[in-house]
Amino acid sequence: MLLTLDLLGIFVFAVAGGLVAVRKELDLVGVLALAAVTALGGGLMRDVLIGDVPPPGLEDWRYLSVPLGAGLLVFFFHPALGRLERLIRQIDAGGLGLFAVAGALKASDYDLGPMPAAILGVVTAVGGGVLRDVLVRDVPAILRRGELYAIPALAGAGVAVVGAEAGLADAVVAGPAAAVTIIWRLLTIHRGWTAPMPRTRD
Amino acid sequence: MLLTLDLLGIFVFAVAGGLVAVRKELDLVGVLALAAVTALGGGLMRDVLIGDVPPPGLEDWRYLSVPLGAGLLVFFFHPALGRLERLIRQIDAGGLGLFAVAGALKASDYDLGPMPAAILGVVTAVGGGVLRDVLVRDVPAILRRGELYAIPALAGAGVAVVGAEAGLADAVVAGPAAAVTIIWRLLTIHRGWTAPMPRTRD
Amino acid sequence: MLLTLDLLGIFVFAVAGGLVAVRKELDLVGVLALAAVTALGGGLMRDVLIGDVPPPGLEDWRYLSVPLGAGLLVFFFHPALGRLERLIRQIDAGGLGLFAVAGALKASDYDLGPMPAAILGVVTAVGGGVLRDVLVRDVPAILRRGELYAIPALAGAGVAVVGAEAGLADAVVAGPAAAVTIIWRLLTIHRGWTAPMPRTRD
Repeated sequence: MLLTLDLLGIFVFAVAGGLVAVRKELDLVGVLALAAVTALGGGLMRDVLIGDVPPPGLEDWRYLSVPLGAGLLVFFFHPALGRLERLIRQIDAGGLGLFAVAGALKASDYDLGPMPAAILGVVTAVGGGVLRDVLVRDVPAILRRGELYAIPALAGAGVAVVGAEAGLADAVVAGPAAAVTIIWRLLTIHRGWTAPMPRTRD
Repeated sequence: MLLTLDLLGIFVFAVAGGLVAVRKELDLVGVLALAAVTALGGGLMRDVLIGDVPPPGLEDWRYLSVPLGAGLLVFFFHPALGRLERLIRQIDAGGLGLFAVAGALKASDYDLGPMPAAILGVVTAVGGGVLRDVLVRDVPAILRRGELYAIPALAGAGVAVVGAEAGLADAVVAGPAAAVTIIWRLLTIHRGWTAPMPRTRD
Repeated sequence: MLLTLDLLGIFVFAVAGGLVAVRKELDLVGVLALAAVTALGGGLMRDVLIGDVPPPGLEDWRYLSVPLGAGLLVFFFHPALGRLERLIRQIDAGGLGLFAVAGALKASDYDLGPMPAAILGVVTAVGGGVLRDVLVRDVPAILRRGELYAIPALAGAGVAVVGAEAGLADAVVAGPAAAVTIIWRLLTIHRGWTAPMPRTRD
């Protein structure tokens, strides 16, 4: 069940990454690479930082097969998938919540304190997108556009690590924590909420 | 013998990286850094991901001296080396084959399965060039230009891991596997073969 | 005492990173992320490469709190801090010397030879700034602008590892080594010294 959700999150992130590659006029290698980097990059960053190497994202063939399959799908059927972009954006909220919570709980299991664990949850959820944006020479969307993305991820990751510190089982805490991220993110999409900007210099 | 080939591959990659730095009007630090990153970056990525740290590319002084020496050569003699760019491009095919096969076999030794090992071979071969392009703010050539580069690397890495899985000694499988990459890449250069592009939206 | 100096260096690097984020019109997440990446990125690179994971920069809450606090300061008070930019540039020289020497000595403790240890000292000192520049889509300043920055860092790191190889205690060698970097860097700022550029093609 958890694996299925995880692979679904990877699939959605990979499709989003592949569509960016098509828009940027990359070739087949670029589409597959961006799909894989977007889907697996955040988890690989987390695993390298906590010392879980070789990372499961490389060792388990399913974690590599899903983004490569998603990349091929995008390569051949991107006009149809592009029309689903609004839907994909909503499912992406699910991936965001899932990755933030799973990443934070894994970091917690590796004896990181609550603050670093929550931050590694955010890295898991947004790291792949940051790598993808750097590769196609965009300033990463999460740093720039003001849209709330990293902050809902941090909220869910924070709930997860606080629950874990309080001794609750991962299975108990994961659902509500992911829900915090997902609901906040979906509301953000529908209401256009934004992150605070620095005051402009007067 | 293998070490000599390895250092030759590093030298050629370093020269190519240094020439990019000169074209981008970087200073001495930029030329040396781009030479080292291009030559060693892919191997460092692989070693960090499989957990071989500190990586041999840092521990063994020869792996650091060759790219820094190559960078100095480029710094002082780049007009002459620039005229050899066609030749360098062909020797680069040798480095590509060597790095892809050596990287895949090393990943295989670290108990990664055939698919992840082959992909880490490609990362070894192209990772340094990707880092170099990101540092000088280009979209990485291998994702974009349609020229076949990563795919021949994957083919050679794939042959190597299939041979290793079949129980053949590394010394037996390395030569033919590298030849697959090198010949395919040289043919690509001479015939202008390209990677498939996504259909443009109708 | 050493910890205080270390945290001061992190604070100054974080303020510099946050000010770049404000200039690039990033949002709150961007300001905090760039402050943290600039201050901690070089140390994280070093720790991942030598195998000290999870890195102290993540495990110790003080190393995360200082850059996030500095980022918040910049977010709210950037007009005032922006006016202090000349002062910050001079304190930054202190961070450069401290990070280069501490990074080189730590790498030395992990049994790296003198050349790799000195280079990891430079990576510690400049790595965070390179990541920051890549994230906001600038060619990293240290590769480009000709101003002496990495070379003074290398000089201090080199003095530190030579001293350590000669059997001197870290506490003895750290001060003079950092002074080499700091004085050279301050002189560079005041006199406008530049790194050598490649000859332009005739």
